[in-house]
Amino acid sequence: MINFTFQNPTKIIFGKGTEKQVGKEVSQYANKVLLHYGGGSIKKTGLYDRVVTSLKEAGIEIVELSGVKPNPRLSLVYEGIRICRENNIGFILAVGGGSVIDSAKAIAMGVVYDGDVWDFFTEKAVPQKALPIGTILTIPAAGSEASTGCVITKEEGGYKRAVNSELIYPRFSILNPEMAFTLPKYQVACGAADILAHLMERYFTNVPNVELTDRLIEATMKTIINNIPIVLEQPDNYDAWAEIMWAGTVAHNNLLNTGRIGDWASHDIEHELSGIYDIAHGAGLAIIFPAWMKYVYKHDINRFAQYASRVWNVDLSLWSLERAALKGIEALENFFRSIGLVTRLKDAGIEDDRFEEMAQKCTGSDQYTVGNFVKLKSADIVNIYNLAK
Amino acid sequence: MINFTFQNPTKIIFGKGTEKQVGKEVSQYANKVLLHYGGGSIKKTGLYDRVVTSLKEAGIEIVELSGVKPNPRLSLVYEGIRICRENNIGFILAVGGGSVIDSAKAIAMGVVYDGDVWDFFTEKAVPQKALPIGTILTIPAAGSEASTGCVITKEEGGYKRAVNSELIYPRFSILNPEMAFTLPKYQVACGAADILAHLMERYFTNVPNVELTDRLIEATMKTIINNIPIVLEQPDNYDAWAEIMWAGTVAHNNLLNTGRIGDWASHDIEHELSGIYDIAHGAGLAIIFPAWMKYVYKHDINRFAQYASRVWNVDLSLWSLERAALKGIEALENFFRSIGLVTRLKDAGIEDDRFEEMAQKCTGSDQYTVGNFVKLKSADIVNIYNLAK
Repeated sequence: MINFTFQNPTKIIFGKGTEKQVGKEVSQYANKVLLHYGGGSIKKTGLYDRVVTSLKEAGIEIVELSGVKPNPRLSLVYEGIRICRENNIGFILAVGGGSVIDSAKAIAMGVVYDGDVWDFFTEKAVPQKALPIGTILTIPAAGSEASTGCVITKEEGGYKRAVNSELIYPRFSILNPEMAFTLPKYQVACGAADILAHLMERYFTNVPNVELTDRLIEATMKTIINNIPIVLEQPDNYDAWAEIMWAGTVAHNNLLNTGRIGDWASHDIEHELSGIYDIAHGAGLAIIFPAWMKYVYKHDINRFAQYASRVWNVDLSLWSLERAALKGIEALENFFRSIGLVTRLKDAGIEDDRFEEMAQKCTGSDQYTVGNFVKLKSADIVNIYNLAK
Repeated sequence: MINFTFQNPTKIIFGKGTEKQVGKEVSQYANKVLLHYGGGSIKKTGLYDRVVTSLKEAGIEIVELSGVKPNPRLSLVYEGIRICRENNIGFILAVGGGSVIDSAKAIAMGVVYDGDVWDFFTEKAVPQKALPIGTILTIPAAGSEASTGCVITKEEGGYKRAVNSELIYPRFSILNPEMAFTLPKYQVACGAADILAHLMERYFTNVPNVELTDRLIEATMKTIINNIPIVLEQPDNYDAWAEIMWAGTVAHNNLLNTGRIGDWASHDIEHELSGIYDIAHGAGLAIIFPAWMKYVYKHDINRFAQYASRVWNVDLSLWSLERAALKGIEALENFFRSIGLVTRLKDAGIEDDRFEEMAQKCTGSDQYTVGNFVKLKSADIVNIYNLAK
C-alpha cells in the first residue's frame, strides 16, 4: 500500500423522496441558481416540477440551461459560463446523469477563471477555484456525483478530455433510486459497463499488498453484476436500483483507490472512440476493456486469476492460473453481451480505418504512454483496437 | 435499504512519515494547541519529539495534557476543559488510540459548553458546537479517528456512556502504520476484537436488501482476520499493519452502515463490564459478542449462515443452515482464542455476582431495551452474561 490522502466532503442524501430536500440544501450556498439539465426526461417524470417547487419554496431564484447531451460539449459549457456571469449565479444545480454533472463542473470552474476553461483540459492551467455545485442524480453510471472528475468533449477535432480537481466535488448529491426506473434498457447497460470499468481501472494495479481495497472493489463489482440483470427485467425494482445507485457512487468516490494506483488506459482509449464516433462511453468501454485485458493479462496472471475467482466465481486450479485468468475475461465479455451490449467494434458499426489516428491522439506522441498497469504506446493501442475489431 | 445521509469530512493522511505533516495541518485551524496523549509510549517511540518539532516549526504554541488511560475518565476531561479555557486553546491534537481521541472529543465539546459536559452523555443536552480536533493514531481499534463517537467513563458509579455527534469528526487524522509496531500483543488482539465488533454490530441488521454494505463489511472483516495473525508473528510487518489500520478506520467511519440499522447491544452490554471491572473494551467484546450471538442467532438464521459462509468459509448446506450459523459463531470464538483473548468471563476473572446489577444499569429500567437486531430487556442481558460465564 502506498501513502495517500483521502477526503471526500460530498454529502450524500439517499433514498425515496429525497429530491424534495434540494431547496433547503441549495439555500445554504446561494439564492440564485443555474438549473442545468439535459432533455425533457426530467419533465416527463415529474422530477423537474418537484425540483422547481422545492427551490422556489426555499426562496431561490432559478436560471435554466438545458440541452446537455451525452459526451457533454464545450460549446454548452461556454454558454453556461456566460449565463452564470450575466446573472451573477452563486450555485449550479445539475439534475441528470454524468454528462449533466460534468457540464456543470466545467461551468463551475470556468465562471471564476479569466482564461478559456479548455485550458484546464489541456493542462495549460490548473483550476484555483470553482463555484459550488450540487447534483440530483438520475443515472447511476459516471460516479461524477461524488468525484473529482469532469470529462468534456471539444466538438472541433473531437477531443474528449478530463480534469480532476478537489474543487469540483459536489457539495451535496441527492440519490433517489426511483429516478432510474424510467431509464431505457440500453442506457442501464451502458451505466453498468461504466461502473464496472471504474472498478476494474482501480483493480488492475501494480501496487502490492492492497488486500482491503481489492476486497472492497470485488464486493462492489459483485453487487453490480448481481443487480443489473434484476433491473433489466424489473425496471421498478427499488431495492436492486438502490444497490446499483449506491455502488455506482462508491465505485468512483476515491475510497477504492486509496493506497493504490489505478490503470485508466481503457478510459483513455475509449475517449478517442466516443470523441470521434459519439458512441456512449459505457458502450465503448464494454468493447475496449475486454480487449485491453486480453492484451495485458500476462503482465500479472495472479491478479487476473484472483479477479476471475473472486468476482466471477471461476474455479482456481493452481496449476492453470492462466486458464482461470482467461475465463475471467470471458465471463466479463459474456456478462456485457447478456445485458445487451456489444463487445466488438464492428458490431457497433466502427470500421478499422482510423485506429492509427485515434491511437496517436490518445498518447499525443510516440514518446508518451497511457495506463499504469502496463504503459502503452500508440502501437500498443492500435493492437488493442485490433483485438476489439 | 433505508434512506440515509452520509458525509464524512475527516481528511485521512495515511502512510510512512505522515506525522511530520501535523504542524502544517494544525496551522490551518489555530496557533495554540492542546497536545493530548496517554502515558510515555509516544516518548519512547520518538513520536512525541517528531510531533513537537513539526508543531513548533509551524509556529504553533503547545500546551500539554497527558495521562489518558484506557476507558478514559471524566475527571481528566474536566481538567482538559479547564486548561483549554485558561489558555485560550483553539485546537486539540490527540496523539494515541481511541481513549486519547475520545478524551479529546469530550474536551472539545465541553470547552464551548456552559453546563457540565457529562450532560451530553446522559442525554440531558445535545452538543451545539465543539473545538476542532485532529488526531495522530497509534492503535488501530476504536475507529474514533474518523467517527462521530465518543465514549467516556464517569469514575463515580462506574458509568461508561457514549455520545455521537457530527461536530466531533476530526478535521484530520494521521495514520502511520509504523506507529503500531511497538504495541503489546494483547493490545493488538483487543484492537482486533474491537474492529471486528464494529463490523459485526453493523452486519447484524433487520433491514432487508443491503447487499452492497453486507459485502463491504465482509471484505473488511476478512482483511482483519487475515492480517492480525501476521502482525502477531511479525510486529514490524508494515504491509499487514497498513491493511489493519485502514480497515479499522473504514469499519467505523459510517460508510458501512449506510442504508441499514446496526445492532450495538454487545457494545452496550460490554460497557457495563468495562465500566465496573475496567477490562479493555476489546477484551470484553471478545467475551460478550459470541454469547450475544448464541442468544439471538435464531432470530435470522439466514443472516448468521451468510456470515459463516462468506466470512469464515463455512460450507453451506441448504438443508442445515442452523449448523452453518453455529459453525460461524464457533469460528469467531476460535479466532479470538487463537489471537490470545479469552471468551469467557471466568477466564477474565469476572464472577457471576453482579450480572443483575449490570443488566439493570445497561437498560436503565425493566421497560427499556438495548439493541436493534433483537430488542433485549435486562432479563435477556442476564441470560447473555450467563452464556458468557
